[in-house]
Amino acid sequence: MAKQPSQQLWGGRFTGTLDPIMTQYNESIYFDRVFYSQDVRGSIAYARANTKNGILTQQEFAEIERGFGIVLKEWEEGRFEIKPGVDEDIHTANERRLGEVIGKDIAGKLHTGRSRNDQVATDMRLWLRDQLDTLEGYLVDLLKVIAARAEKDIEAVMPGYTHLQRAQPIRWSHWMLMYASFFTSDLARIRELKTRVNKCPLGCGALAGNPFNVDRDAIAKELGFDGLTMNSLAGVGDRDFVVETLQWGSTLMMHMSRWAEDLIIYSSGEFSFVKLADAYSTGSSLMPQKKNPDSLELLRGKSGRVFGQMAGLMMSVKGIPSTYNKDLQESVEPLLDHVKTVGDSLQIATGVLSTLEIQPENMLKSLTPDMLATDLADYLVRKGVPFRETHHISGQVVALAEKENKPMDQLSFQQLQSVDQRFEQNVMEVFDYQKSVEMRSAKGGTSRSAVMEQIEAVKKALAGGR
Amino acid sequence: MAKQPSQQLWGGRFTGTLDPIMTQYNESIYFDRVFYSQDVRGSIAYARANTKNGILTQQEFAEIERGFGIVLKEWEEGRFEIKPGVDEDIHTANERRLGEVIGKDIAGKLHTGRSRNDQVATDMRLWLRDQLDTLEGYLVDLLKVIAARAEKDIEAVMPGYTHLQRAQPIRWSHWMLMYASFFTSDLARIRELKTRVNKCPLGCGALAGNPFNVDRDAIAKELGFDGLTMNSLAGVGDRDFVVETLQWGSTLMMHMSRWAEDLIIYSSGEFSFVKLADAYSTGSSLMPQKKNPDSLELLRGKSGRVFGQMAGLMMSVKGIPSTYNKDLQESVEPLLDHVKTVGDSLQIATGVLSTLEIQPENMLKSLTPDMLATDLADYLVRKGVPFRETHHISGQVVALAEKENKPMDQLSFQQLQSVDQRFEQNVMEVFDYQKSVEMRSAKGGTSRSAVMEQIEAVKKALAGGR
Amino acid sequence: MAKQPSQQLWGGRFTGTLDPIMTQYNESIYFDRVFYSQDVRGSIAYARANTKNGILTQQEFAEIERGFGIVLKEWEEGRFEIKPGVDEDIHTANERRLGEVIGKDIAGKLHTGRSRNDQVATDMRLWLRDQLDTLEGYLVDLLKVIAARAEKDIEAVMPGYTHLQRAQPIRWSHWMLMYASFFTSDLARIRELKTRVNKCPLGCGALAGNPFNVDRDAIAKELGFDGLTMNSLAGVGDRDFVVETLQWGSTLMMHMSRWAEDLIIYSSGEFSFVKLADAYSTGSSLMPQKKNPDSLELLRGKSGRVFGQMAGLMMSVKGIPSTYNKDLQESVEPLLDHVKTVGDSLQIATGVLSTLEIQPENMLKSLTPDMLATDLADYLVRKGVPFRETHHISGQVVALAEKENKPMDQLSFQQLQSVDQRFEQNVMEVFDYQKSVEMRSAKGGTSRSAVMEQIEAVKKALAGGR
Amino acid sequence: MAKQPSQQLWGGRFTGTLDPIMTQYNESIYFDRVFYSQDVRGSIAYARANTKNGILTQQEFAEIERGFGIVLKEWEEGRFEIKPGVDEDIHTANERRLGEVIGKDIAGKLHTGRSRNDQVATDMRLWLRDQLDTLEGYLVDLLKVIAARAEKDIEAVMPGYTHLQRAQPIRWSHWMLMYASFFTSDLARIRELKTRVNKCPLGCGALAGNPFNVDRDAIAKELGFDGLTMNSLAGVGDRDFVVETLQWGSTLMMHMSRWAEDLIIYSSGEFSFVKLADAYSTGSSLMPQKKNPDSLELLRGKSGRVFGQMAGLMMSVKGIPSTYNKDLQESVEPLLDHVKTVGDSLQIATGVLSTLEIQPENMLKSLTPDMLATDLADYLVRKGVPFRETHHISGQVVALAEKENKPMDQLSFQQLQSVDQRFEQNVMEVFDYQKSVEMRSAKGGTSRSAVMEQIEAVKKALAGGR
Repeated sequence: MAKQPSQQLWGGRFTGTLDPIMTQYNESIYFDRVFYSQDVRGSIAYARANTKNGILTQQEFAEIERGFGIVLKEWEEGRFEIKPGVDEDIHTANERRLGEVIGKDIAGKLHTGRSRNDQVATDMRLWLRDQLDTLEGYLVDLLKVIAARAEKDIEAVMPGYTHLQRAQPIRWSHWMLMYASFFTSDLARIRELKTRVNKCPLGCGALAGNPFNVDRDAIAKELGFDGLTMNSLAGVGDRDFVVETLQWGSTLMMHMSRWAEDLIIYSSGEFSFVKLADAYSTGSSLMPQKKNPDSLELLRGKSGRVFGQMAGLMMSVKGIPSTYNKDLQESVEPLLDHVKTVGDSLQIATGVLSTLEIQPENMLKSLTPDMLATDLADYLVRKGVPFRETHHISGQVVALAEKENKPMDQLSFQQLQSVDQRFEQNVMEVFDYQKSVEMRSAKGGTSRSAVMEQIEAVKKALAGGR
Repeated sequence: MAKQPSQQLWGGRFTGTLDPIMTQYNESIYFDRVFYSQDVRGSIAYARANTKNGILTQQEFAEIERGFGIVLKEWEEGRFEIKPGVDEDIHTANERRLGEVIGKDIAGKLHTGRSRNDQVATDMRLWLRDQLDTLEGYLVDLLKVIAARAEKDIEAVMPGYTHLQRAQPIRWSHWMLMYASFFTSDLARIRELKTRVNKCPLGCGALAGNPFNVDRDAIAKELGFDGLTMNSLAGVGDRDFVVETLQWGSTLMMHMSRWAEDLIIYSSGEFSFVKLADAYSTGSSLMPQKKNPDSLELLRGKSGRVFGQMAGLMMSVKGIPSTYNKDLQESVEPLLDHVKTVGDSLQIATGVLSTLEIQPENMLKSLTPDMLATDLADYLVRKGVPFRETHHISGQVVALAEKENKPMDQLSFQQLQSVDQRFEQNVMEVFDYQKSVEMRSAKGGTSRSAVMEQIEAVKKALAGGR
Repeated sequence: MAKQPSQQLWGGRFTGTLDPIMTQYNESIYFDRVFYSQDVRGSIAYARANTKNGILTQQEFAEIERGFGIVLKEWEEGRFEIKPGVDEDIHTANERRLGEVIGKDIAGKLHTGRSRNDQVATDMRLWLRDQLDTLEGYLVDLLKVIAARAEKDIEAVMPGYTHLQRAQPIRWSHWMLMYASFFTSDLARIRELKTRVNKCPLGCGALAGNPFNVDRDAIAKELGFDGLTMNSLAGVGDRDFVVETLQWGSTLMMHMSRWAEDLIIYSSGEFSFVKLADAYSTGSSLMPQKKNPDSLELLRGKSGRVFGQMAGLMMSVKGIPSTYNKDLQESVEPLLDHVKTVGDSLQIATGVLSTLEIQPENMLKSLTPDMLATDLADYLVRKGVPFRETHHISGQVVALAEKENKPMDQLSFQQLQSVDQRFEQNVMEVFDYQKSVEMRSAKGGTSRSAVMEQIEAVKKALAGGR
Repeated sequence: MAKQPSQQLWGGRFTGTLDPIMTQYNESIYFDRVFYSQDVRGSIAYARANTKNGILTQQEFAEIERGFGIVLKEWEEGRFEIKPGVDEDIHTANERRLGEVIGKDIAGKLHTGRSRNDQVATDMRLWLRDQLDTLEGYLVDLLKVIAARAEKDIEAVMPGYTHLQRAQPIRWSHWMLMYASFFTSDLARIRELKTRVNKCPLGCGALAGNPFNVDRDAIAKELGFDGLTMNSLAGVGDRDFVVETLQWGSTLMMHMSRWAEDLIIYSSGEFSFVKLADAYSTGSSLMPQKKNPDSLELLRGKSGRVFGQMAGLMMSVKGIPSTYNKDLQESVEPLLDHVKTVGDSLQIATGVLSTLEIQPENMLKSLTPDMLATDLADYLVRKGVPFRETHHISGQVVALAEKENKPMDQLSFQQLQSVDQRFEQNVMEVFDYQKSVEMRSAKGGTSRSAVMEQIEAVKKALAGGR
């Protein structure tokens, strides 16, 4: 009974010992070839270290370095030929080709004491480290545009919303700087993240460590790593550096989605606060008058996509025992798409904001006197009336205006006094949006000085990292 | 201030009105071309319906049909040339090419009353409907293998586990049929799902409906749909058919992951119940003795990947207002990968199970007499002792065996009697794994007859659908 | 070295063999007591079946039934006393109490051949089955309100949006019916789901089946189940009925979130299409004029919460081997909260919609003539001009109106003719929102007859299930 | 038509203006009362700051401080009476009670310039900051146990696994330190996280800032915050501090799940490497011999639960526009449960590890000579044979041993030489697990010195933070 069930019984997709679907299900070369140069660099550093401990002679190392130079050139010039079904992944492909170039006797010594387990982790970290630098640059660019634009547009006043209901007047720059606040947090996080990504797992072997006492510190130094993964079992089984990157990107895109959502609402016909540049809009195949904010909708939609990559990988990693399991291969494709999507999105957002036209006159039109009801209550507060009472009085004024069917600032002084005797003639000065905005001068507020202070804070944050 | 902020201020990635990153961020042609034939079929059906209501003459329709025949052939022969930057999506690409083939005067009439909004939903549903048929087929194949193998391997007895602790002896076939139970649920669900996918949205227009009274029922019939989406706003804004597909696939792969997890454990050196065929295993680059169950690990890992696609899309859809928003474009790529991944996985699993070698002697070795402790308790139950008491007595026997450091079935009859006087000579018959297994003859149990009944139930379920 | 590490070394939170944190980490009585009546009913049915096969005498069964009557009464009257640290879960609590009431000799026979594994699955399914009936009822109520309101409000015309940009005029009823379309899908799904939930796992034992040939069909019949779980290993290890419920609820709440999002936007000051009843709004602690749509925001926010429950459980289930593992206890709390949240949400939504005030005059104000650009294009289509050309011509009219800074319908006939000679005098009739709406008379469209047809379809769907 | 739809038509659950379901759907007092002391502290600090800017007199402030002292005492002594339907949340409850204690004239001044929006964010951050300190402490405790135990158990050698296949011998301590590596990363992350949580939003008002120039820095200092949220719109609309906490906890529990999974497998009958203390195990209601690792399974299962909380909140936050929306209330309950679950889990894990008994003799039994195949290959490497060749040779030896059906170390020297002439007599020294382990002496490896170095690194990391 222990013998292999006959193919006749089950019917089989394949004869013999090969299942072509399994081959493509298993192989990673079609996506991990993106690490070709990291793989070469890592191998050279590893070989150099193996020269010091006597595994390789200086001459052998020189040959390996020369050979990899040729291999690298083939990749860069698009001449590297992947052998389907043979080159399972970038590591085997590169070593196979090295062997063809310099001969198997020397090339066959390269992998001594090494495993694909520590090799792939090294390649991924090297690649990701550089990508994170690029992403950080894109993020800084976006923040620079926000800061510059916040300074330039500082005069524009618009309704601030809570619950999407008009709440209090704010500066448009204040709105932009809210997102600067979110994005500078993302900036702080990516800087912390990079230090964790940039650790060297090479020399961990398959799991138990390197038996030739290879100098891991030297390898790490050559490759520009900040340090070592300190436990070899963790070194090969850890994809936290991917998980944390995806968490970072998902959080950033969550911010981006809210930003896009605001702008989509502000560019609706009913709001009309902003106009997207044509470059970031598209028309309709049916409706000639339409101009749709596709760029913003894609930013919002892709927020879900990148979250899904994070959620999916966490589920995969959560469900495995320790050290390397093949499940971890599923970390690569999401990472590649994630990094590209986040990078594109940051550039799109920067483009959108750079070219966005605001319509301050529509912002003003959308302001209504009842948005100053808090200012009216504050007026009485300054006369010593407890806020809870002034809140109630102001509410009565709002109700009176509704009953009279006129804006609150069109009520007569007498009508205001009928609500509360403590209103004096200068109460009418309350109904001034500019004044209202300037009153919010405590730190973080919407007054000119408070906004300028926030701009400076953003600029300072940018300087922090690079 | 309303004028466009100067490019000099922000620095701009692009001059003029085009942002190349936006172009590729927006375009879908590189993945939605997979719908080329569905797009053509839908257009022909739509044109035919527009002939009946006078939008097109018979002759114009004939030209459109002829033209699309040529376009389709170009796709099928790999000769269709996508114009980068022009062919934004499959719909514009096909119409552009049709215009070149039959002239714009007639081709320009095709899109009358239609929008890409109803067109893309139609294409996706047509494509998915056929894919679900294929997936159902793969699932049926897997179930057939399980049923056949359960019948063939019915003699093999192994430890059943709860909490991964040895619990009671079961048949290996019973274990396989557990997954048949999960997978037949998946089969029932895909059959229900298909009826919801296979609804026709064509004729919904951009959102408000078709103004030329197009005969939607005729279109649906020609395209093999089961019915119509009944509200045009929903018709264009609904991606439930994708969400539900991804939920279905995630659930199926959740089952697959548990199945793979069991087999990975069973193929460990410590268990050694099963041996994977070489076709579904791989070796180690470092350790010559290793044979790793990569196929199973990939099945387990990809369970996370497909879940992430579902989670990501649900987040995207959740965060949008009604009708069509560009965010919905983010439903396409996850769907394509999901369907491929699930389809591949089903085939891999079928291959793995077809070729798996079981090692019944190791299964037997792993059975221990204490797994019959419940049978021992049941022995006294049959003598009228309350179960709670017999459970306690049997526990004492287990403890005694541990103390004596011998298997429970090596205790002497006297030792058993020292625990409880009601044990009689025939108690020793309890220590028989085959007997234990055969005792579980109530429906769903692990006795031969109960297992055979389950096999019949699976076969019956297969017949249900197609 | 194998001996227990000394407590002194590690320092220990506890002395002796108990960890109080573990006790509360492990016990489920504080949430699973909600199943008290299901647990009693299941036990009675099980005891009755065990009478037929001789485990219990008629008299013993009568005592068990009588005793459980008393236990049940204690629960119902709030007199049942949970013994902390002893009553780990509802099953042990009920059996412990039964023993006190009728004596342990008989009560001790109850659990014969049964395990908490099949017992908890039975309790959960019984409870959930009834809850799903209740949820279905709430959903039907919501759909009835939509249908009634769609009929009553049929005159109101509003802008239809795609990409949140004004697209074409639609009926407000048509908007409501879009969600009826989503919710009737949810209705179909819950009806399918119920058949899978309502299967009886009792008699599966711990995993291997029942050794006393208990009549599972009789148990299932007594408990009102539709059938049996067919494999005992699956019976105890399957939480698909929870997963599928959570997927169902997450999808429904995803619809609810979009519905709420639409209404939040429509109740903003800039749109002002609808006014929420005071019962579903709240004020601001600071701003006297505010009236916030808290009910809708909570609906939208809780959509994330219920999704998280689904995602979390799928991750837990995905990561375990087969049969019962304690991880499955984590299915209970999410289920309880999920069912309550979805039930509350359905009732809130029904209340909101029942009491919502629409402001048709604001809807009309928001309509703009350029929303008829497609109708203008269609006008020429009816004169034989290819749509692609008419789309372009209509676009030129839109541009002209923008350039002239006047609404499109304020352009003179001469101005229209200057764009295209084929415009005739009756072109001005195009600029009529009512007419535009009535043109969309194909199935699913926004004309009166098409909307009425959709209302009938909803009513018909409601009848389907109960 | 704009008038309220008649209740008769829809049928209504409620008459008048109240919906009791809405009341409980909306109110948060039953969970946010956990913030009672933070709410009081924040109010006192705010009142003190409002004394400096003239809103309150010194005497009024003294009354407020006195009154809150009484309120706080009521909470602490369990005497605070929540008024159902009146005390919507902790903020209104505390202020209501303050008014009763000191009179409304003074209490009514407390909320001047403040909103519940900045108040709730302040309460949550204060509470969470302290909780994170506690969690950090639990994490440090766990790491201390790992380090101590790794030192004590350093002699034990076990199989190391990749793909759950025996790979190479490793120290048990090395296995424990792998998780120390993951958990020290978590430690670094929580320390970074705390600085972002510990920012003061008080003084942001509802959204636009404080109009009385309140000294936010003074408030922050009094409350022990590290700084301010710099933009008032962000201050009230930001729940990143919750999202990041949930990401942190989900990642930690992902590690915990893998740890638990390893130990569950190691405590299976087939492995038998470890024995859980009784305090962390439970028995079976049916099977007398069972001892189940419930603690570990719950740790593994709760990993899904906490992930779900994170995923759900991210979906909720993603789907809202900027500033405060009521959806954000959905951040509180998940946070409370998350923090409790993670805290309990850390303590359970510490208890489990402190009391775990290892069975080194079983670990040794599970080692097999073929796990030294890499060492055999390395033997030839040291003789100058290229690794690729030695890998192949060693593979032949493995195959020969399988063919001969004997362990690899039972092959004769002649048999080894028959495979490759370069094997010399001392090759037999390779078959020594201790030697194999000691060979892996490069940093991060499994040799004694490398393991000791890792223990030191853990100890050093612990010192880092507090």
